Amino acid sequence: MSDNAKYVYFFGGREAEGDASMKELLGGKGANLAEMSRLGLPVPGGFTITTEVCALYYENNRNYPEGLDAQVDECVAKLEALSGKTFGRGSNPLLLSVRSGAAVSMPGMMDTVLNLGLNDETLPALAKETNNERFALDAYRRFLQMFGDVVLGLSHHQFEEVLQDVKERHHASNDAELTVEGLKDVIEAYKDVYSRNNTSFPQDARAQLQAAIDAVFGSWNNPRAITYRQLNSIRGLKGTAVNVQAMVFGNMGDTSGTGVAFTRNPSDGTNEFYGEYLMNAQGEDVVAGIRTPQPITHLEEVNKECFDELVELRSKLENHYTDMQDLEFTIEQGKLYLLQTRRGKRTAAAAVQIAVDMMNEGLISEEEAVLRVDPLQLDQLLHPTFDQDAEDNAHFLTQGLPASPGAATGQIVFSAADAEQWSSQGKDVVLVRIETSPEDIGGMSAANGILTSRGGMTSHAAVVARGMGKCCVAGCSQAQIDYRNKTITFGGVTLNEGDWISLNGSKGKVYNEKIATVDPQLTGPFGTIMALADKYRKLGVRTNADSPHDTRVAVRFGAEGIGLCRTEHMFFEGERIISVRKMILAEDTEERKAALNELLPYQREDFIGIFKALDGKPATIRFLDPPLHEFLPHDEEGQVEMAKAMGTSVQHIQDIVASLREFNPMLGHRGCRLGIFFPEITEMQARAVIEAAYAVPGSRPEIMIPLVGHVRELAHQKNLVLSVYEQIQAEQGKPLDDLKIGTMIEVPRGAITADQVATEAEFFSFGTNDLTQMGCGFSRDDSGRFLQHYVEQGIYPEDPFQVLDREGVGELLKIGVQKGRQTRPGMKTGICGEHGGEPSSIEFCHMVGLDYVSCSPYRVPIARLAAAQAAIREEYGSLTK
Amino acid sequence: MSDNAKYVYFFGGREAEGDASMKELLGGKGANLAEMSRLGLPVPGGFTITTEVCALYYENNRNYPEGLDAQVDECVAKLEALSGKTFGRGSNPLLLSVRSGAAVSMPGMMDTVLNLGLNDETLPALAKETNNERFALDAYRRFLQMFGDVVLGLSHHQFEEVLQDVKERHHASNDAELTVEGLKDVIEAYKDVYSRNNTSFPQDARAQLQAAIDAVFGSWNNPRAITYRQLNSIRGLKGTAVNVQAMVFGNMGDTSGTGVAFTRNPSDGTNEFYGEYLMNAQGEDVVAGIRTPQPITHLEEVNKECFDELVELRSKLENHYTDMQDLEFTIEQGKLYLLQTRRGKRTAAAAVQIAVDMMNEGLISEEEAVLRVDPLQLDQLLHPTFDQDAEDNAHFLTQGLPASPGAATGQIVFSAADAEQWSSQGKDVVLVRIETSPEDIGGMSAANGILTSRGGMTSHAAVVARGMGKCCVAGCSQAQIDYRNKTITFGGVTLNEGDWISLNGSKGKVYNEKIATVDPQLTGPFGTIMALADKYRKLGVRTNADSPHDTRVAVRFGAEGIGLCRTEHMFFEGERIISVRKMILAEDTEERKAALNELLPYQREDFIGIFKALDGKPATIRFLDPPLHEFLPHDEEGQVEMAKAMGTSVQHIQDIVASLREFNPMLGHRGCRLGIFFPEITEMQARAVIEAAYAVPGSRPEIMIPLVGHVRELAHQKNLVLSVYEQIQAEQGKPLDDLKIGTMIEVPRGAITADQVATEAEFFSFGTNDLTQMGCGFSRDDSGRFLQHYVEQGIYPEDPFQVLDREGVGELLKIGVQKGRQTRPGMKTGICGEHGGEPSSIEFCHMVGLDYVSCSPYRVPIARLAAAQAAIREEYGSLTK
Repeated sequence: MSDNAKYVYFFGGREAEGDASMKELLGGKGANLAEMSRLGLPVPGGFTITTEVCALYYENNRNYPEGLDAQVDECVAKLEALSGKTFGRGSNPLLLSVRSGAAVSMPGMMDTVLNLGLNDETLPALAKETNNERFALDAYRRFLQMFGDVVLGLSHHQFEEVLQDVKERHHASNDAELTVEGLKDVIEAYKDVYSRNNTSFPQDARAQLQAAIDAVFGSWNNPRAITYRQLNSIRGLKGTAVNVQAMVFGNMGDTSGTGVAFTRNPSDGTNEFYGEYLMNAQGEDVVAGIRTPQPITHLEEVNKECFDELVELRSKLENHYTDMQDLEFTIEQGKLYLLQTRRGKRTAAAAVQIAVDMMNEGLISEEEAVLRVDPLQLDQLLHPTFDQDAEDNAHFLTQGLPASPGAATGQIVFSAADAEQWSSQGKDVVLVRIETSPEDIGGMSAANGILTSRGGMTSHAAVVARGMGKCCVAGCSQAQIDYRNKTITFGGVTLNEGDWISLNGSKGKVYNEKIATVDPQLTGPFGTIMALADKYRKLGVRTNADSPHDTRVAVRFGAEGIGLCRTEHMFFEGERIISVRKMILAEDTEERKAALNELLPYQREDFIGIFKALDGKPATIRFLDPPLHEFLPHDEEGQVEMAKAMGTSVQHIQDIVASLREFNPMLGHRGCRLGIFFPEITEMQARAVIEAAYAVPGSRPEIMIPLVGHVRELAHQKNLVLSVYEQIQAEQGKPLDDLKIGTMIEVPRGAITADQVATEAEFFSFGTNDLTQMGCGFSRDDSGRFLQHYVEQGIYPEDPFQVLDREGVGELLKIGVQKGRQTRPGMKTGICGEHGGEPSSIEFCHMVGLDYVSCSPYRVPIARLAAAQAAIREEYGSLTK
Repeated sequence: MSDNAKYVYFFGGREAEGDASMKELLGGKGANLAEMSRLGLPVPGGFTITTEVCALYYENNRNYPEGLDAQVDECVAKLEALSGKTFGRGSNPLLLSVRSGAAVSMPGMMDTVLNLGLNDETLPALAKETNNERFALDAYRRFLQMFGDVVLGLSHHQFEEVLQDVKERHHASNDAELTVEGLKDVIEAYKDVYSRNNTSFPQDARAQLQAAIDAVFGSWNNPRAITYRQLNSIRGLKGTAVNVQAMVFGNMGDTSGTGVAFTRNPSDGTNEFYGEYLMNAQGEDVVAGIRTPQPITHLEEVNKECFDELVELRSKLENHYTDMQDLEFTIEQGKLYLLQTRRGKRTAAAAVQIAVDMMNEGLISEEEAVLRVDPLQLDQLLHPTFDQDAEDNAHFLTQGLPASPGAATGQIVFSAADAEQWSSQGKDVVLVRIETSPEDIGGMSAANGILTSRGGMTSHAAVVARGMGKCCVAGCSQAQIDYRNKTITFGGVTLNEGDWISLNGSKGKVYNEKIATVDPQLTGPFGTIMALADKYRKLGVRTNADSPHDTRVAVRFGAEGIGLCRTEHMFFEGERIISVRKMILAEDTEERKAALNELLPYQREDFIGIFKALDGKPATIRFLDPPLHEFLPHDEEGQVEMAKAMGTSVQHIQDIVASLREFNPMLGHRGCRLGIFFPEITEMQARAVIEAAYAVPGSRPEIMIPLVGHVRELAHQKNLVLSVYEQIQAEQGKPLDDLKIGTMIEVPRGAITADQVATEAEFFSFGTNDLTQMGCGFSRDDSGRFLQHYVEQGIYPEDPFQVLDREGVGELLKIGVQKGRQTRPGMKTGICGEHGGEPSSIEFCHMVGLDYVSCSPYRVPIARLAAAQAAIREEYGSLTK
């Protein structure tokens, strides 16, 4: 490269040599600083040494290209001119920060040096200029420590030991208590550390700068950074850039100050300038809480010029970034500097309000407005919440896991049966259990909220509660529950049955009293965003619902049908479980049929209720899936009870339970394997669905056969259903308005042979929970421990049960869709695993061309929004890989 | 179709209108009969009505094409002329058989009628001609029953009731005791059955024939046949043909006779005419055992002409079919008829001998010789067997499952420890257990054979014994084992420790004495076939072996390396299990490392032994795979013992066992997940392998990381291995001769993302056991019950754990190979599941281009032969789909 090559790009004085498009060359940070300066924003001046220099540095055995030094010198001179300060000398010293910055962000992986330019000469000048000797000394000692550690590689323990030592001598319990004298001692002691390590602190500022630049380029290839790039598959970068920028100080006297501000209210989204500041202070003072910051609007009285400039900045930033910004500013001796501006964090309510307002203001398009709201955040808006003041003042008891969002308040009950009974008397109850099991479904549904002392975020209680949109705090391990005496004890506090308790399921908090709740608002800006989502999305959104109540909730949230109706949940309610158990205990087909006949009217009524709630929307109904032992009691108490109810011996019940026990129930006798072994179960379920469909004209049942791995399994079950349909059709004298028979693709073999399965299936629904279990070989119930380790180690980027594993499970899904449609063009495909309510997974479903996603009722709005975002991103070409 | 169309094809008199190529038109049976006749073989004459007629029959609403009747009449006339008999009349009546026969065999699915042409007129003629009134009456009553049932659809229960009734009246306890008078009564009573059903038996023979033809064509579309075609995917057939053939009788006096013969000795393969005959008898008399048949060679004295013709037939058949034939013949009044010829069943020894002889005789090619031996049958030749006479005369005790082939004799011991101890004293022992567990491995290895009273063909005892090539009789449920008193009781017989017992593992038989065994012969014709197999096969054949002993056995059987060395089996032996348990109980990494250090020398010695046994052949060594709880005792007795040995409380052991318990261990914390969680385990194993490889120059270790689903799992483990290698290399001062690091593809995700996995893997070995479990969602331990049902229902054609499921699991394997080699062209791939020793699966491995299969030592010759057959079939274009 010739000596005329440009290695360094200057920015400052509201102009710049680079711009935002030059990320590859200037790194992300450098390109942004250039762009901000070019936009006329008052960022402190500085310059960026390009990533090309980094590449050349390594290519040439850690030697810089000729001409670099001169370009750096030139930029330093320009900075001096711009700031009116001088570098490493004089009465108003120019201090610099030196930071790394590659084209892709690698947070914390490379080195930073601040306050560069301080030395024994500039120290007193800074003290005088800021009129704050202590500040200047503290800045110097920090610089000495950072330079020694980062640039020279001296062990930071040595500096910490020395500091501790001085503090003890000066009886200072923390850094802030160190006096001017103490700090002077620290500085001397730090210099000794340098000597002890056979080196010395360079008094020459230019030498300091060169060493810092060396250190940043050197850090590009430190082991930590290399590992980070490997783990995050960051490849093809030239290297890091080095950003050198003037430091500014808000504590240079009364004409200086610092503050943070949001261009709109981040809490409710109101279009107002929002923030606070402190005069003669540094950024850390604003957040430290020692002095009370002032509302930003008061600045107008203190420094109208700066305030006006800030107000102007506010609209400039919003116009440029077309989003609410969070900005940090410093006023140094009356001059305003913008230190940082970034997208402002906001509550869900604010996000929705701001998106709709900005769209109405013409600042952003409809599509942009849709993209502006984080779908996951929406959850905050869908559940009852506590009145904030009431919660803040309530008596806090303990903290558990935030297992299912929302707020609940009620009287404590300790059994599902009590929950149902008290609730039927019009009482508000909270169900408190050590852990829950499928038999508790009725009580969970009746309760306002659920509290458990055991189990994690994917425990039975958590999963079912999320499905129901019911508030749940799980794994509250400090709580001791005593079923016999009906008490729950938190440390010293013991609560009894009937006592009031409140749960914040979004935060996992438990309170010792009744707290007023506020219902969610689904109209206004929320309604606007949802309408826009529906306008842009291509994916349909259905719900997973097993009852008329859940169905109605989901339809109100915009569900376009049921994507998964699990029939087994219906088997647990009330009297039915007795018939189910009779069926399991049956000694022959006739006995089994008799028990199934008892279940038939219940199932039919369930479906009638659901079809009515759907009002002509389709319902995918999955036939019996879990292994039969799930319907039997596993504790002795329950077995004794069951033996009594069935008129048999406890031993007999225990024998049955033992005979149904499996080593790997997940891969055992379940799904369609049950219906093939016991065709009468399938026949009963088919009859219930079909008779219900006749009873509710316009119904659109879609019968789904679970766990199909081989087309002949589906053919077998389909034949059974069709022969039942023929019988009923003959009785009714007319065909149904609509009936489809399809399958769940959840066994890898089902996906791999989808071309064959589609010869029988009229639709596919991907059960990605089981597809993940079998595809990755992870038992969901067992893998918690090592999967967490896996995510920490970066082996999987996310828990594949939460975010669909696109490369593996997603590939199976893709193969399934392609092969299925190859046999049956245009075949309807959907997803009904828990991924159906997770935005990244929904995006993937959009990408592979599914027709719909299905999720729990309270996830329906999230799915609608995520689906719209996927469609818009596809239009923009910005889908995630 | 015009009236000139040909609907009926005649055969007989050593010529025919059709031939073997006309299967579509004449059906399989018809085409064969035509071909045999055309070859000059003396088959009884007859004719075939084409499948086209069947199609026309259904197209035209069950009406036959014009002209058919005339063609049938013409053929009947020809038959009369050829046989010198008359149809339905006269003194020497022509009787016919009427059989179905489609282009694809559908055994038992369609109808057959025999003895057609008998009526009240021909009955006495037949009696006179055969000089056997009873025979004629019996033939008539059988025809009446068959015609009523098959042709007229009268319930066969009615005929059976009537027959039973007559037998009671005549005090005949079975059919054979019925006298002439009794049979006459039966005939009258049968005719009454016809009347009771408002029909009558047609006396006119031509009407009988027409009705039988109608019945056969009608049976093409009976529900049974339709279901059979659906289940077996038989599609695109026109219909069935109808074969009408003259019946011949060997019991028409002293110049008649019947017999069966093999063109070579089916027991040892000797090239000699082998068989037996009876004069004045029917086929069933030969097998009934009432009269003693004569050796075929004696026929020469009785009827030299027929004997010479048979001898000529023998060489004609062998020359034509170029294989040993099993033929049935009848001599009717001095005239020889060939009723059937088919490939003769033979023992393994005979199969090998015949193939080699025929090749040497120039009758078949080398390739044909290889194809002639059933690989599975070879197993008979690889194990010690009993001296046949000694076994026949030994005292039989009971029958169990033939769990692992071979013969064993020894003194009874009841524990693995005793087996090892007695064996070390030079005693022959048989280990008798209720069931076995991994802790028994040492004792199983020391014993000559294993007998268990519980567990099936895939129980621990069975699987391990097959792997060891050790004789095993499992699931001997009649035996009661009493460990305390050291007795085993079979019904009335009680045996004690030290008593002699003998097992035939090929038949599942148990004998109450010592029986002499014969060692297998691996040279001679067996050696010739194996050498040919090696000449033609393209697949390599390796073995699954965990010990130097197994390795040596396998190498003797021709193994070209180890494809799967399971390191965990080594963890159970002797003292090691204590160190393994210390490792599991370790409270921190240091403790765990200390325990692992105890294991290191053992593992290193294991590998040194194996590398020596391999003498430069490669060894794929799989790192620790099973979940840790498998190494802990699950019964209280064992836990108490372990607590004592470890110096801890039983409760602590039980807590650990409980904490390691998993819902679905198959999908739990095992495989590389262990090595990622506890890197020190991987490091120890890497050190053991690598140090052993340095100790045995020329070793070729291939380290295999199990259960990889994500490339980053492999990368993690590979880095660990390589860093251990770097350390040892630095100590040794030179690199290893060879070291590869690869993975087992057994998780579906591993196959689906094989392109990524191959960036790290230097080889793939497909673990099709687990790939089947996860791919199909079948827990091997639990699916026995419903998988059997599945195979019976025709859902899966075979148990996918025994025969690789080509469409599903095979497709995953194919994807794995393709994607893997796309990243790493020419990458070595193999299979190490139990499928590696199963011929159909081996054929598939050949088809998808694997480099090798690996199987248990005693399966190695089977695999070599199956691999050769696959290669030859590919050449011939006759691979199975």
